[in-house]
Amino acid sequence: MKPKIKVSIVGGSGYTGIELIRLLISHPNVTIHQITSRNDAGILVSDIYPSLRGKLPHTFVDPEKAKLNESELVFFATPNGIAMNYVKELLENGVKVIDLAADFRIKDVSIWEKWYEMKHNAVAELKKAVYGLPEVNRVAIKNAQLVANPGCYPTAIQLALAPLIRKNLINTETIIADAKSGISGAGKKKENQLLMSEASENFKAYGLTGHRHLPEIEENLKVIAGTNKIKLTFVPHLIPMVRGIHATLYADCIKDFNPSIIYNEYYKDEPFVDVLDPGSCPETKSVRGSNLCRLSFYKIPDSNRIIILSVIDNLVKGAAGQAIQNMNIMMDWPESSGLNLFVLHP
Amino acid sequence: MKPKIKVSIVGGSGYTGIELIRLLISHPNVTIHQITSRNDAGILVSDIYPSLRGKLPHTFVDPEKAKLNESELVFFATPNGIAMNYVKELLENGVKVIDLAADFRIKDVSIWEKWYEMKHNAVAELKKAVYGLPEVNRVAIKNAQLVANPGCYPTAIQLALAPLIRKNLINTETIIADAKSGISGAGKKKENQLLMSEASENFKAYGLTGHRHLPEIEENLKVIAGTNKIKLTFVPHLIPMVRGIHATLYADCIKDFNPSIIYNEYYKDEPFVDVLDPGSCPETKSVRGSNLCRLSFYKIPDSNRIIILSVIDNLVKGAAGQAIQNMNIMMDWPESSGLNLFVLHP
Amino acid sequence: MKPKIKVSIVGGSGYTGIELIRLLISHPNVTIHQITSRNDAGILVSDIYPSLRGKLPHTFVDPEKAKLNESELVFFATPNGIAMNYVKELLENGVKVIDLAADFRIKDVSIWEKWYEMKHNAVAELKKAVYGLPEVNRVAIKNAQLVANPGCYPTAIQLALAPLIRKNLINTETIIADAKSGISGAGKKKENQLLMSEASENFKAYGLTGHRHLPEIEENLKVIAGTNKIKLTFVPHLIPMVRGIHATLYADCIKDFNPSIIYNEYYKDEPFVDVLDPGSCPETKSVRGSNLCRLSFYKIPDSNRIIILSVIDNLVKGAAGQAIQNMNIMMDWPESSGLNLFVLHP
Amino acid sequence: MKPKIKVSIVGGSGYTGIELIRLLISHPNVTIHQITSRNDAGILVSDIYPSLRGKLPHTFVDPEKAKLNESELVFFATPNGIAMNYVKELLENGVKVIDLAADFRIKDVSIWEKWYEMKHNAVAELKKAVYGLPEVNRVAIKNAQLVANPGCYPTAIQLALAPLIRKNLINTETIIADAKSGISGAGKKKENQLLMSEASENFKAYGLTGHRHLPEIEENLKVIAGTNKIKLTFVPHLIPMVRGIHATLYADCIKDFNPSIIYNEYYKDEPFVDVLDPGSCPETKSVRGSNLCRLSFYKIPDSNRIIILSVIDNLVKGAAGQAIQNMNIMMDWPESSGLNLFVLHP
Repeated sequence: MKPKIKVSIVGGSGYTGIELIRLLISHPNVTIHQITSRNDAGILVSDIYPSLRGKLPHTFVDPEKAKLNESELVFFATPNGIAMNYVKELLENGVKVIDLAADFRIKDVSIWEKWYEMKHNAVAELKKAVYGLPEVNRVAIKNAQLVANPGCYPTAIQLALAPLIRKNLINTETIIADAKSGISGAGKKKENQLLMSEASENFKAYGLTGHRHLPEIEENLKVIAGTNKIKLTFVPHLIPMVRGIHATLYADCIKDFNPSIIYNEYYKDEPFVDVLDPGSCPETKSVRGSNLCRLSFYKIPDSNRIIILSVIDNLVKGAAGQAIQNMNIMMDWPESSGLNLFVLHP
Repeated sequence: MKPKIKVSIVGGSGYTGIELIRLLISHPNVTIHQITSRNDAGILVSDIYPSLRGKLPHTFVDPEKAKLNESELVFFATPNGIAMNYVKELLENGVKVIDLAADFRIKDVSIWEKWYEMKHNAVAELKKAVYGLPEVNRVAIKNAQLVANPGCYPTAIQLALAPLIRKNLINTETIIADAKSGISGAGKKKENQLLMSEASENFKAYGLTGHRHLPEIEENLKVIAGTNKIKLTFVPHLIPMVRGIHATLYADCIKDFNPSIIYNEYYKDEPFVDVLDPGSCPETKSVRGSNLCRLSFYKIPDSNRIIILSVIDNLVKGAAGQAIQNMNIMMDWPESSGLNLFVLHP
Repeated sequence: MKPKIKVSIVGGSGYTGIELIRLLISHPNVTIHQITSRNDAGILVSDIYPSLRGKLPHTFVDPEKAKLNESELVFFATPNGIAMNYVKELLENGVKVIDLAADFRIKDVSIWEKWYEMKHNAVAELKKAVYGLPEVNRVAIKNAQLVANPGCYPTAIQLALAPLIRKNLINTETIIADAKSGISGAGKKKENQLLMSEASENFKAYGLTGHRHLPEIEENLKVIAGTNKIKLTFVPHLIPMVRGIHATLYADCIKDFNPSIIYNEYYKDEPFVDVLDPGSCPETKSVRGSNLCRLSFYKIPDSNRIIILSVIDNLVKGAAGQAIQNMNIMMDWPESSGLNLFVLHP
Repeated sequence: MKPKIKVSIVGGSGYTGIELIRLLISHPNVTIHQITSRNDAGILVSDIYPSLRGKLPHTFVDPEKAKLNESELVFFATPNGIAMNYVKELLENGVKVIDLAADFRIKDVSIWEKWYEMKHNAVAELKKAVYGLPEVNRVAIKNAQLVANPGCYPTAIQLALAPLIRKNLINTETIIADAKSGISGAGKKKENQLLMSEASENFKAYGLTGHRHLPEIEENLKVIAGTNKIKLTFVPHLIPMVRGIHATLYADCIKDFNPSIIYNEYYKDEPFVDVLDPGSCPETKSVRGSNLCRLSFYKIPDSNRIIILSVIDNLVKGAAGQAIQNMNIMMDWPESSGLNLFVLHP
């Protein structure tokens, strides 16, 4: 049996961080080396997250004092704009990096800088970064040293659209993505709108005039489609619950086709995409805690319109689970290692 | 001061029924005469709904024993297919009727019978019925003896679209209505999917292959538009909360126009439609318990696409409140009588 | 008809503040003069609370610039330790004051200073302050210029206990109050534990080693009982919902008595206390949004133990509604003016 | 490696059933043989519970057609009064049985028949049954062929009290158990009070005049204490959430002792009891999905009163997880096999 590799988490005190910890603790091939947190340095991780009591002896380390170069792989579960300051040195030291934030998701630097309102200071590394959506990009991920883990909305939406746009079956300039996310998607931020008194028993759209995930989705759909003619209308909404993303996609078909055949063929070997019967309605609860994406679709009779429904857990397939999946691919381990997760119901 | 009129409620034990009771108790011009319930006959209304203790002395009456002809106006808060058996006699006796179910919402009998899977046995009355969406149909309601109160989704969606389609500003054959409803929209039914263990922390679409509100919306949009060329894609979803509907509409503009001007002009005298600034996002919580519809919109730059957002409380503007508004119009009372409701926040 | 009086709210941007606004808007005898907020000065109240759009033209005023002396009555919906800096001047100018915070709830200055960890700097005024629990203290409130509005837990608990301890029916040194509160009881604070991701699907006790409401309850129970022999064990818990307090009280009877007779007699003229049948279980939802306290009790057979259950809405009878009730008494208006509130169900 | 044993589940379509399935699927020593359901016979388990899609090929079997004798161990996740009809034959055939319902929890047949309102028809087997609370009864469980899995409230309460009453440290006739449960504790029943519209944003007590778990708790506390002098006041409440039990216990100490020493000593070798620091407050969310019980306590200064707080997941340590733990003990497997569960946070 091979020795386990050491992995570290930078920014471990947020929801993506604790989800990475949950998954890494039971992963057969890794040991958790260091978990950093600027604010909680010196505190037991299980004091911040009592759900981890007895599972993990680690104390949060100040990121400036962490010895990240001693890990073989480092996950960044930090806010946007942090990982780009670390990757050059890590890559030079042969450390693999998976960034769960947005620093390396968009190749076009000017678009990135416009949406994220800061200067990108790892442009050379950005060029080498691979977009970590395994169902679309597996080969490149296998050989990558730096993986940009996709956003939660982009994962749900791209998995819903990839089979259709890769085969050029829909008009790629009229796509609509009406997406809904549980509140953990906004992270552990002390914002008014995330207070239970405000968020529960409430539903609203947000980012109507523009959301950072739109350029990410469009850029990567262009790669999948092999064309620049991609135009998406994207409206995110906040659901009064904790976990789960539901994307409802609307598109105009430009050819006649059987979507069941297309989807089942495209995803037939994928361990984490579950194609349902046409017309059925996947529930976010059925994937909560798991790395699955469940998909269904319905072509409206006497119409060229197709509806595609896609659900994921935003913190698993939309973040930490997909990061583990990417690690497994990068390390040439079985892709499902540590991801045989069970959904809690109810 | 004029004497109060007597009104009765048939089917008072469901959520629409109790909401009617809440609103009628404090209405200045009515007294509640009888409240019927087949299952709860003989039981104090406040025993079923403790929130009414001390507010209402009524006992549920068996509908067969109720003297509905003695009321001046009768509300039907019954399942579909009940009101149509009562209206002939009531109308002949000069009683006004407002049906909160679907029996009189669709003029085309064959379409109604197909979607509601029963024979319509009040076809003559159906012809006289007026569709009770005041913002569109006020004059006809004023003179009606029988009003079909619109469904909750149709109210949110038609109010969002009416200004645009009446002026022929959008392509009426490519409209998409992605709608979301709190769970009280499904009524007080003992169904698995309505149990808290199933519905909370869950989000899903339903009725993907067809929902009864679609033909209602399409038929009435045709009237508003003055054309038969209406085609809507309608996908309802279930939100893990109790009250509120959020409709997100997508349409393709066929002319250049300023939506703020269009909406503010169209709704400038409406007491229950609140037009927000472009690009803002109305919250369902901001209308919970009130008869308001809050609307906003956003035209995507460099695109002919417009997004319209619309929120209502499904049990108020989507049911009981709108019924009161219709009563006020039919009785020539101030339209807001009994509807000066305050939202509970948080 | 008498002219309306002018009232102001200091600290109007929290949950107690907005609830006061909701109730005062429809109160027949008052107009809202000024609403202050240090942080939101200059902003429309309805921009912070969209639920008030169209109901209120006011802008938040900086408390330093407010002309509070021009109001006839001022409500303080501020954090603890603020009102005590204002009352001297207000009282000297003949302005009546109702403090919804804790500054004047405890007569014993040293106990107050220990629990609230600050110096009390309005000791003279504290002596004049009247504890505003109308069901116990109505006559004193009538003549008061300064009323200390009770805390939410103390209201639920004292209303449950008053009939028994006033008649000396229970051992007052072994009482247990196991109390549970919805999350709005903690106010609109940006704390981790109030985030929906943390608070929903969670239940916990807090303040196990001491809660500020304990000395308030004990001091006032002593007044009610006419003895210093009061000892209460008080454990508050956080319920994953927004509004409502449920207190479960356990006491040892020292006499034989029929609790139905005791409670119904004690509360027979009270407009806001609803005594239920013995053994029944009041629901917080049945008082949500109303100024009611619903009570029930159960004497365990073959035992001297009695259980009392008490529910209120923490923001109404536990805060703003009780403050309005106190104002009505102080102004010699009908005690229920502006408080004929309807519960939203579901 | 030893071959896996075959286990079956009778009554697999409820919440306890699906939780057993979740845990048994990943248990290293078992294969699931048959899962019965009277109502859902012939249907794929994963059609009823989509969260199991791809994890389990089983179809529900009619209990009359199931070949339970072919299993080595059978779990009953049925309503009360079912298992008692099956056990005689199963035990005679050498099959081990764990009943998750109440049929074998109370030794005193007359008390059982009074509370469960039916005749007990397996009295001989009842005598052999062992009460399956491992922390108290491990040796007897090891040798049992029939185990009565404790109720959810009794587990939380007995684990909180056992260390104190075994050492005779508290007055066992004045104990109060104020207990609160998430709604899944009521099972998957189509009852009004379990509908999300009724249960959410609501809190109430129930069973005030008597709950079936009280005689179970009292009988088994008598065994632990070695005395018949046990009297408990037990009030259960319903929390608006899905999973979790929180018990708040109040007792009067009759000796001077350090509870930290007592609890840590008593539970020092227990894999599933986590003793927290005195005065801390365990959260139900910190044990959701796991087999843990977290406990803390606080002795009130200058008083003989002690408060004990105890949290479990009602479906795991309060049902299916404890059943697995009992199976592990009965089969002489490591007690934590299949129970190394991770809590989902948030």
